Amino acid sequence: MKTQKLAIIGVGHVGSSVLATALQTELFGEIVLLDPKDKVAWGEGLDQMHAAGLLSRKNIAVHIGNYTDLADADIVIVAATHVYPNGEIPADRQELLTENLPIIHEIMTNIVQNTQSAMLIFITNPADTIVYIAATYDYPRNLLLSTGTMLDSSRLRQLLGQRYQVDPKSVSGYMMGEHGFAAFPVLSHLTIAGISYDKLSTYFPEVALLTAEEIKEKVVQAAYDVFAAKNGVTNVAVAQAAIDIARCILLDEKSIFPVSVPMTGHEYHFAKPCAYSVPCVLGKEGVEKKLLVSLNSWEKEKLAESVASIRKSIILTE
Amino acid sequence: MKTQKLAIIGVGHVGSSVLATALQTELFGEIVLLDPKDKVAWGEGLDQMHAAGLLSRKNIAVHIGNYTDLADADIVIVAATHVYPNGEIPADRQELLTENLPIIHEIMTNIVQNTQSAMLIFITNPADTIVYIAATYDYPRNLLLSTGTMLDSSRLRQLLGQRYQVDPKSVSGYMMGEHGFAAFPVLSHLTIAGISYDKLSTYFPEVALLTAEEIKEKVVQAAYDVFAAKNGVTNVAVAQAAIDIARCILLDEKSIFPVSVPMTGHEYHFAKPCAYSVPCVLGKEGVEKKLLVSLNSWEKEKLAESVASIRKSIILTE
Amino acid sequence: MKTQKLAIIGVGHVGSSVLATALQTELFGEIVLLDPKDKVAWGEGLDQMHAAGLLSRKNIAVHIGNYTDLADADIVIVAATHVYPNGEIPADRQELLTENLPIIHEIMTNIVQNTQSAMLIFITNPADTIVYIAATYDYPRNLLLSTGTMLDSSRLRQLLGQRYQVDPKSVSGYMMGEHGFAAFPVLSHLTIAGISYDKLSTYFPEVALLTAEEIKEKVVQAAYDVFAAKNGVTNVAVAQAAIDIARCILLDEKSIFPVSVPMTGHEYHFAKPCAYSVPCVLGKEGVEKKLLVSLNSWEKEKLAESVASIRKSIILTE
Amino acid sequence: MKTQKLAIIGVGHVGSSVLATALQTELFGEIVLLDPKDKVAWGEGLDQMHAAGLLSRKNIAVHIGNYTDLADADIVIVAATHVYPNGEIPADRQELLTENLPIIHEIMTNIVQNTQSAMLIFITNPADTIVYIAATYDYPRNLLLSTGTMLDSSRLRQLLGQRYQVDPKSVSGYMMGEHGFAAFPVLSHLTIAGISYDKLSTYFPEVALLTAEEIKEKVVQAAYDVFAAKNGVTNVAVAQAAIDIARCILLDEKSIFPVSVPMTGHEYHFAKPCAYSVPCVLGKEGVEKKLLVSLNSWEKEKLAESVASIRKSIILTE
Repeated sequence: MKTQKLAIIGVGHVGSSVLATALQTELFGEIVLLDPKDKVAWGEGLDQMHAAGLLSRKNIAVHIGNYTDLADADIVIVAATHVYPNGEIPADRQELLTENLPIIHEIMTNIVQNTQSAMLIFITNPADTIVYIAATYDYPRNLLLSTGTMLDSSRLRQLLGQRYQVDPKSVSGYMMGEHGFAAFPVLSHLTIAGISYDKLSTYFPEVALLTAEEIKEKVVQAAYDVFAAKNGVTNVAVAQAAIDIARCILLDEKSIFPVSVPMTGHEYHFAKPCAYSVPCVLGKEGVEKKLLVSLNSWEKEKLAESVASIRKSIILTE
Repeated sequence: MKTQKLAIIGVGHVGSSVLATALQTELFGEIVLLDPKDKVAWGEGLDQMHAAGLLSRKNIAVHIGNYTDLADADIVIVAATHVYPNGEIPADRQELLTENLPIIHEIMTNIVQNTQSAMLIFITNPADTIVYIAATYDYPRNLLLSTGTMLDSSRLRQLLGQRYQVDPKSVSGYMMGEHGFAAFPVLSHLTIAGISYDKLSTYFPEVALLTAEEIKEKVVQAAYDVFAAKNGVTNVAVAQAAIDIARCILLDEKSIFPVSVPMTGHEYHFAKPCAYSVPCVLGKEGVEKKLLVSLNSWEKEKLAESVASIRKSIILTE
Repeated sequence: MKTQKLAIIGVGHVGSSVLATALQTELFGEIVLLDPKDKVAWGEGLDQMHAAGLLSRKNIAVHIGNYTDLADADIVIVAATHVYPNGEIPADRQELLTENLPIIHEIMTNIVQNTQSAMLIFITNPADTIVYIAATYDYPRNLLLSTGTMLDSSRLRQLLGQRYQVDPKSVSGYMMGEHGFAAFPVLSHLTIAGISYDKLSTYFPEVALLTAEEIKEKVVQAAYDVFAAKNGVTNVAVAQAAIDIARCILLDEKSIFPVSVPMTGHEYHFAKPCAYSVPCVLGKEGVEKKLLVSLNSWEKEKLAESVASIRKSIILTE
Repeated sequence: MKTQKLAIIGVGHVGSSVLATALQTELFGEIVLLDPKDKVAWGEGLDQMHAAGLLSRKNIAVHIGNYTDLADADIVIVAATHVYPNGEIPADRQELLTENLPIIHEIMTNIVQNTQSAMLIFITNPADTIVYIAATYDYPRNLLLSTGTMLDSSRLRQLLGQRYQVDPKSVSGYMMGEHGFAAFPVLSHLTIAGISYDKLSTYFPEVALLTAEEIKEKVVQAAYDVFAAKNGVTNVAVAQAAIDIARCILLDEKSIFPVSVPMTGHEYHFAKPCAYSVPCVLGKEGVEKKLLVSLNSWEKEKLAESVASIRKSIILTE
């Protein structure tokens, strides 16, 4: 019998959090860790393994490995990234791409030599450019995605949940476009208990209605707040998002999550191929369907800005 | 230190399923079972306790008790009901009320003598009339509800999830009104990934769009299908609904669930008081807010039918 | 990608409880139900599916099927049994075997035609004879077992946990031999917090020390108590045991559980082959190791009685 | 209704891991974070809150606070510690005490002013001296403990699980004495599937039997390995241990865990009061019973060494 297997590539702050979250589930019988800093990854694995003697935990085999270990992996989560000393934030975000580009090329070169069937979930930033590049390799298109705006969307729901004093899980809505600065809320498709965003004041008169632009800024700010407070790290929410995607695919749940996937350009009438987040149906075939939801004029404009921003980044990689 | 305590009143098919579901959570340190058939309840508790030696289970104290055990209960789930021999279905549903009315009066009389602070969650049918009667007792209004159309709503999402091949949890929507035959889907507030019900054909052209009437019939039929196939029992989904409500309240999650609560009549401009399901914010104060969502003309008509049906039932109890 | 798949053969009281327990885990993406009473099984599956619209649940595909569905199953749990009307208890337990024998032959005939790689977990009684017969078919020996005394062992730990007012999970110990009347506690290998059974009075002077014989009787009585109180049904604890075995195997945990497996006879110097429960290491290869623990003279005598009882039953099947 | 409340004092590497682990349970409806570095704690809380919009998570209120927030806390986990720059390891462990002593005095001074009823779980090192000092304050004795050798014990079971290729949860055993260098395995009370440690070679002839001294060294080494590999941090296993203790108490499970508690000295015939780890029954009354298990001569010697080491540390605080 084959146990379900997770590979985590890059075991820094984010990868460690992915590991911790994975070990709270029953999804994997084996987890392999790949990191150039073998020793830190091994220490992280060992610390987690030491918990396996507690009755609350499952006895999951965690070990360090190399790319040949991907051959029978079901899920690969890529959290590798260049690390700036002392949580320093690059003055120019293009800088991060310059650092991460060779990392992602090395990872994809090695992945395609070892598997054609694992689901690849990227967390590495800049998320959209990374998944675009990954998709240039000889690998099934449906089996790769980035967590993209799934994290921004969770922040959006949290923001509105707090404002309206309701469970964020009772907010149905998402951010689309570029993960990060250019992500935008799709308020034309957001509801709370089925109530359209623009009708919320009828039911919650005590809450001032924010504009789409204000919400966009607040969600971006929330990311920055965590980043600044945690010295350049935002890891736990994105790790949970990655594991939730993995669960959905392993259990073939067909949930609809906003994730970043390669786009030809035709989808929303752009001239060039790109990669950005749209709501996708995820199941055992990976990305099974993209929902190209209609957008209002502000949203169309913001999507164009997202695409322009990502394209600018893509061009620099070519 | 006080552990959180659940009391289950009525330990037949439904109550047993409530117990089984509760024991898969970490919400309760003590569960007390009340049933005139003490021995069956005790056997059910014992069978569950026998699992507590397995590493997957928590060591929760389950015992049979009486109404004085409610004094420090946090949650009381009422699943008591008249049982027809051989899963027989009453020709007239008024009949079930005739049988259950003295049961609910006895339960409420005993509850108010022992507590004023536990959250009361009713499953007993006819759900709306039962919660209406319960609310005539001297008990905080915010601390009583019936699971109502939370079950019908889950069936609705399951139905649409199956049709559109998406996770029911990605369907945002609910049924309102009377639990059971007169419950109706509020399609004006239903979305899949934020897409309005009436726009779904654009994204899922292969799926024929059902009318509200057709969906209503199919959801009612789904309940009947389970009822008929299981010889007069539908228990597991409603038990999960009751425990989800309990979790939401104990963790103060502020989730919005469609549940049946007492209504003055003014809410939707009816002449008389009643009880039926609307989306409610649930938290540590119990029913913290009712969302009286706007309805289209078909939905208004169906709500009137629901209210008429429940009122007819209420009048017979007076 | 292939999701992990469970097949449940026999969806009566026990099989339904197996289904309910399985759906509280993250182990399976697909569950298929096989039962001659297709309609009841379908109703049970449907009732469970109706819960999948609740946020607490996973969207697991549950459907009725036939033996060809076993081809890609990972775990098969056999809960099929002859049902006596009105919870009647057979005067002679040999009677149950007479009824269940053709059932198990039919099941095994069909299983071997469709798979050679699924783990088979039997719950059907008489447990030991059933697994002995199953092992006469052309199927990998390591891939079949009965829950056997795993349930009796959980009851044993529960009994001692209650007596000593400690968590049953802090009791390390098990029953061996025949599942049911002839099962016996292996007190020579039982400890609480590492304290040998015979030294417990030093630490718990207020608790009278029961003899092995008294404990044996009390555990058998506990089973009978549930059976009598629940009108011929004991289902929830054994269902949890079966799912715990499945989890251990799917995650390759290498837990040691007392389960019933085929024996050549040489293990404890008996003349004839048999099947009974001993502590076994369970992992992805199924039954990976049997621990033939040393027994004291009372335990040897009881094992002989168990084997005699099971052999008597086996002979009647030949 | 009052939700169960956790307070975490000190939100560095360990406290963050406690928070992450707590949020994977259903135990708390509110978590308050206390840390002089308010901003980092707030960032950590915010990152976790951002996950609450994901369907897999509960909507738990996490906020920063101050000591008055302890008034209605059920569980307080103290993970505060002096942090050495760059993961530097103090040459002399007495040094850590010198740094942490004023921290713990400040914490206890504030705790006793705000509550007399919360369960206090200390993780701060040196564990035993810290709990000894805490117990000098006016606070119920039964309501304070340190995770102590619960972590060392989990490492012990993991070590033996790996060696014998069995689930660590199937190893029954623990370390006693001082948390850290002087902790020792109580092999006289350790079993695998009920088999005494000294009889293991009969059943596992391929595994060389380690001496107690060798095991002691390996467990201490395991801690050092994590510490060195993770640059001065071991956090995840100890965080899980703290949450497991909290769960056991909140659910009144009566599990037996090895934890560090204040000792008069009489227990094992030492002249002076101290604090060290012994197996304890934990329930809603906190530390409900200490199991003063008999020790063999090597174990007695090691306990004396533990006590001497801790006493030396205690004296320096006076």
